[in-house]
Amino acid sequence: MAGNTIGKLFTVTTFGESHGLALGCIVDGCPPKLDLCEVDIQIDLDRRRPGTSRHTTQRRELDEVKILSGVFEGKTTGTPIGLMVENTDQRSRDYEKIKDLIRPGHADYTYWHKYGIRDYRGGGRSSARETVMRVAAGAIAKKYLANQHNIQIRGYLAQLGPIKAEKISWEVIEQNSFFFPDSEKISQLEAYMDSLRKEGNSIGARINIVATGVPSGLGEPIFDRLDADLAHGLMSINAVKGVEIGSGFDVVTQKGTEHRDPITPNGFLSNHAGGILGGISTGQDIIASIALKPTSSLRLPEQSINTHNEPVEVATTGRHDPCVGIRATPIAEAMVAIILMDHLLRHRGQNSTKVLG
Amino acid sequence: MAGNTIGKLFTVTTFGESHGLALGCIVDGCPPKLDLCEVDIQIDLDRRRPGTSRHTTQRRELDEVKILSGVFEGKTTGTPIGLMVENTDQRSRDYEKIKDLIRPGHADYTYWHKYGIRDYRGGGRSSARETVMRVAAGAIAKKYLANQHNIQIRGYLAQLGPIKAEKISWEVIEQNSFFFPDSEKISQLEAYMDSLRKEGNSIGARINIVATGVPSGLGEPIFDRLDADLAHGLMSINAVKGVEIGSGFDVVTQKGTEHRDPITPNGFLSNHAGGILGGISTGQDIIASIALKPTSSLRLPEQSINTHNEPVEVATTGRHDPCVGIRATPIAEAMVAIILMDHLLRHRGQNSTKVLG
Amino acid sequence: MAGNTIGKLFTVTTFGESHGLALGCIVDGCPPKLDLCEVDIQIDLDRRRPGTSRHTTQRRELDEVKILSGVFEGKTTGTPIGLMVENTDQRSRDYEKIKDLIRPGHADYTYWHKYGIRDYRGGGRSSARETVMRVAAGAIAKKYLANQHNIQIRGYLAQLGPIKAEKISWEVIEQNSFFFPDSEKISQLEAYMDSLRKEGNSIGARINIVATGVPSGLGEPIFDRLDADLAHGLMSINAVKGVEIGSGFDVVTQKGTEHRDPITPNGFLSNHAGGILGGISTGQDIIASIALKPTSSLRLPEQSINTHNEPVEVATTGRHDPCVGIRATPIAEAMVAIILMDHLLRHRGQNSTKVLG
Amino acid sequence: MAGNTIGKLFTVTTFGESHGLALGCIVDGCPPKLDLCEVDIQIDLDRRRPGTSRHTTQRRELDEVKILSGVFEGKTTGTPIGLMVENTDQRSRDYEKIKDLIRPGHADYTYWHKYGIRDYRGGGRSSARETVMRVAAGAIAKKYLANQHNIQIRGYLAQLGPIKAEKISWEVIEQNSFFFPDSEKISQLEAYMDSLRKEGNSIGARINIVATGVPSGLGEPIFDRLDADLAHGLMSINAVKGVEIGSGFDVVTQKGTEHRDPITPNGFLSNHAGGILGGISTGQDIIASIALKPTSSLRLPEQSINTHNEPVEVATTGRHDPCVGIRATPIAEAMVAIILMDHLLRHRGQNSTKVLG
Repeated sequence: MAGNTIGKLFTVTTFGESHGLALGCIVDGCPPKLDLCEVDIQIDLDRRRPGTSRHTTQRRELDEVKILSGVFEGKTTGTPIGLMVENTDQRSRDYEKIKDLIRPGHADYTYWHKYGIRDYRGGGRSSARETVMRVAAGAIAKKYLANQHNIQIRGYLAQLGPIKAEKISWEVIEQNSFFFPDSEKISQLEAYMDSLRKEGNSIGARINIVATGVPSGLGEPIFDRLDADLAHGLMSINAVKGVEIGSGFDVVTQKGTEHRDPITPNGFLSNHAGGILGGISTGQDIIASIALKPTSSLRLPEQSINTHNEPVEVATTGRHDPCVGIRATPIAEAMVAIILMDHLLRHRGQNSTKVLG
Repeated sequence: MAGNTIGKLFTVTTFGESHGLALGCIVDGCPPKLDLCEVDIQIDLDRRRPGTSRHTTQRRELDEVKILSGVFEGKTTGTPIGLMVENTDQRSRDYEKIKDLIRPGHADYTYWHKYGIRDYRGGGRSSARETVMRVAAGAIAKKYLANQHNIQIRGYLAQLGPIKAEKISWEVIEQNSFFFPDSEKISQLEAYMDSLRKEGNSIGARINIVATGVPSGLGEPIFDRLDADLAHGLMSINAVKGVEIGSGFDVVTQKGTEHRDPITPNGFLSNHAGGILGGISTGQDIIASIALKPTSSLRLPEQSINTHNEPVEVATTGRHDPCVGIRATPIAEAMVAIILMDHLLRHRGQNSTKVLG
Repeated sequence: MAGNTIGKLFTVTTFGESHGLALGCIVDGCPPKLDLCEVDIQIDLDRRRPGTSRHTTQRRELDEVKILSGVFEGKTTGTPIGLMVENTDQRSRDYEKIKDLIRPGHADYTYWHKYGIRDYRGGGRSSARETVMRVAAGAIAKKYLANQHNIQIRGYLAQLGPIKAEKISWEVIEQNSFFFPDSEKISQLEAYMDSLRKEGNSIGARINIVATGVPSGLGEPIFDRLDADLAHGLMSINAVKGVEIGSGFDVVTQKGTEHRDPITPNGFLSNHAGGILGGISTGQDIIASIALKPTSSLRLPEQSINTHNEPVEVATTGRHDPCVGIRATPIAEAMVAIILMDHLLRHRGQNSTKVLG
Repeated sequence: MAGNTIGKLFTVTTFGESHGLALGCIVDGCPPKLDLCEVDIQIDLDRRRPGTSRHTTQRRELDEVKILSGVFEGKTTGTPIGLMVENTDQRSRDYEKIKDLIRPGHADYTYWHKYGIRDYRGGGRSSARETVMRVAAGAIAKKYLANQHNIQIRGYLAQLGPIKAEKISWEVIEQNSFFFPDSEKISQLEAYMDSLRKEGNSIGARINIVATGVPSGLGEPIFDRLDADLAHGLMSINAVKGVEIGSGFDVVTQKGTEHRDPITPNGFLSNHAGGILGGISTGQDIIASIALKPTSSLRLPEQSINTHNEPVEVATTGRHDPCVGIRATPIAEAMVAIILMDHLLRHRGQNSTKVLG
């Protein structure tokens, strides 16, 4: 219980259901005197927002964020920052008819068993819509990390079904609605998405995240390692089924001589470690990768049950992403930003010798 | 900081360095009246213990655990359980000569940068020896879960370098020092390990963990999902670079129709989800998989630096596992047990209606 | 940092400044299927609301609470409950002129030193207005405790300056705006308040809280004792300078034979312990008492400094309570309810043997 | 549950029963490179140790502390510090005969109801012996605060039953076994204690704690205020029934003009606030006061029940303090040190701008 908070010094606590009045969060522990306004947050919310291309759900939300507290005359005050986004485009009618259905591949089954009651409208709390607040909170962390420490956190769609990015261009990424880095394969990607939509099916994806400028020393062994906390934050994103740091699962077939990164007085010669050794950042780029499962909400029917445990066939109409991976890049960036921010503050606490006040 | 505790209701806090006086932990939140004695814990410590075959480090520790508190007349009292294992076979001399060296692929570099001081003997706190206490604490969780809820947590070596298990036999697993489930490939495995040792090299591995009998309803959305907490616990194990739940990274190329598990009044027809939907257990087997990197401590030299940032060549003598994966199975089981135990208690807190006392 | 959350299983996180857009909180960990609507919360907000008598600040807020999430079709769902109260009657102009002043006896000095920036409007985050959200969250805990366990939490004004209550009548308490239990002294109280107001001065107060129906067994030694957590929650209320459990400071002159409560097969014969032994509830009434300092915002001038460390004289106009104690009763009740709720759930987690789901 | 940890960044987790094998704790989050050896801790353990005068329990323990980890070559390494004190003088036989008795005024009743099982030897976990580890952990915090920030934490016995200290001399305090500051009244105190012992009775006490050199800015509103956390830490000490900060309960009859502390460019002119405003330290001395109840273990019999709920008369033989307050001074100092240390690190985390590593 009480599982809706992440972080120890920089904490983010979220609330809100897909079709409730609003989504919100409290960002606690943000240092004072950071310039902050709605626009800083809106930029990332807009990157995540649905309805921006024909390849994502047609639900149209403005997702306009309001800062309710913690900012005074354009600067953070060190007190908790309250954020809110109102839900404006809920078509709850769409869900009336699946009121009693347990949608396969969804949280319907488990929420029903855990709580004995559920808000069935759009998945309620389990909807990907919940990630709006992760992105909002992450935007604050991102800004602080960039301004105060020149840390950049960026991600991209590395693979969508059979289509793998080969060239990585950061320019390309922000120029297409997939956050895909390989310009030569974008037309292929769009064709694949169109065929999927015709088929009424969905597909999984892989997202890579790279954090540059991270100082060495972040991460708290033994349990609160930086990699362990990143795994926690990233696996907590809806639909994520796998997390890798650095070489990830490739290490299974690597030999020690291949994997270990040589060090010279000028730095490391490779980065199989993904920027983390012994759970602490090395100062190299932090590299993480996640796998997102395909959406289970499909036109194509599947066997399931209803809340009376009777067999039914479920086919989902309504508005859904054929690939949740497409919009997951800003969400994954946000989680990495939140974790890094928390560890930056934690590291300072133990290791800084300066006391203000 | 203060990163040496895991869990919220069932918490485990550990201390100890590879070559210090002792390793210990405090298990807090264990329910009262569980039958518990040293033997219950020793069984798992012995499964993890080094020096049991020629394929693991020849360091010989008895790893005898002492229960210092929390148990009275053979039963837990509900108060914190203090556990201790004394270090008996420290050959600190082995390490004198690498005092100033930063071993590539190790935590030497990051501990040095983070703390500005380090216990260089056997990696100090960053040594895999620290996992002794995870196994000890996990044994308590395992016993409670088995006795009270008939939950079983078992793991095996699924792959070691190029050698993949094809047949999974739970009998075979406990009959070989690799925890390998495929009897037909064990001789192949031993030959491979011998050649590795001759070569002076090491290799990575994959461990699979299966938890059976887990009730549906465990896990706390949004951030403290069961899968997110499992990812945290498993990624916190030394050398782990990747974590998967259910289909894991295979989902990248799966379509929605393949991935989603059909449900019938008698249960699920498949388990791509790995027993978790929306961060909450479904009641199916929980399936997790981890990737462990190859040991970096090798006879074969590698470029590195010393603490004065001068270039050096590092070759490690001393006693090391050519594959840390071999002994990681009980450690991974322990982490899964600790996480499940914590979530079982958390779930009760919010959802049980019974108040004792 | 990140100090705006209380509780471990039933957690309350608040945000909001006196003159910001809104105050809000997230109540996480409330069990599912509790009947809940705005009215349940509004009742307590109205008990605390200013402007209800000439003896409290004339600031007039409706303090209308909105439930933004966590409740579906009139029942809690087990997901976080988002609450919000908009600020409607901020007269920020009142504060423009004290922009640079450090008001003696206020948090101005410490916020300024800690954060180097502050929202000077009405004390910003340090305003007693922040307690609105404590009361709102406490109302949810109160309702659960009452409905599920028949636990009642009630408080009263035990002393205001020289005027001590001698007769305690629960009926009387809710019939006067002081929450004073002794009808014979109310006119005396009103006369005293009027003279204070003429004088332009303020006065301290003592509030007593009594919780009945609390089962034995709540509280987690050693550090998270029920009495320790009550002390934490009560001391966290603005202006509180002292907390007592049971006999409180009278124990200094009590002998063991006087203090210890005799036990019979039918229960305890006295309650000097205040319902708590060894940090765990005994099943008797839990009795706590707090001391609230007099408001420092007075017409009468006092030496102080401004933010340039120049000497100034500060006299506060604007709308203030001559005795914060008057409205503190519902706030103290709320804190006790939140702490008891948290411990009820924690106790269940460790001691219940039932697993739902 | 899991209530045996205190602190967020500087955390102390303890274990151990009065008559178990050992008491221990893990101090996590101590900054690296602090000079530390057993003697630093032993000094305070000796100040607390029983059997040092005829006025305290005659139980004779050496209470020799062992540092098991976290210190290397005389300096802390930043990793968890494991501490242990073995129990050497347990006379468990003394307790056999009260095996089934519920001692009035003790935790016997509540542990029995909470856990359904208890270690009856010397109160088990609920024994004041548990405070040994608080003192040990506090000694580490004290040393860091003194060396790095010149913060001093000292306490004294302010009142024992009817005998109040009038003159406060820090020299006198360490020269008598009562930690009493008024030399003129010590003979009176000894006479009173002797008469109490003859009578077979016990008495309560008041301890005052003063922390000097505390920088302004420590404390995290709203819930984790410095005063609230001090109240938590102090109320968690066995036998404490009341906590005051600054003027404490005297504020009930104070007027605003009396209570608020005037400020000048050179500092405050008084300290009714006890060094804390709005939950944050002002830079003045922090002043706290606690009330400790009289021991309930008396030769004089009292009505009670046994574990079969049958009426019995309980008279305690064995070795007990007629006034627990006498030895409580070092314990209260330790708790204040632990809380200040935690808040110092937390404050740095949010407000320091320096990142090491």
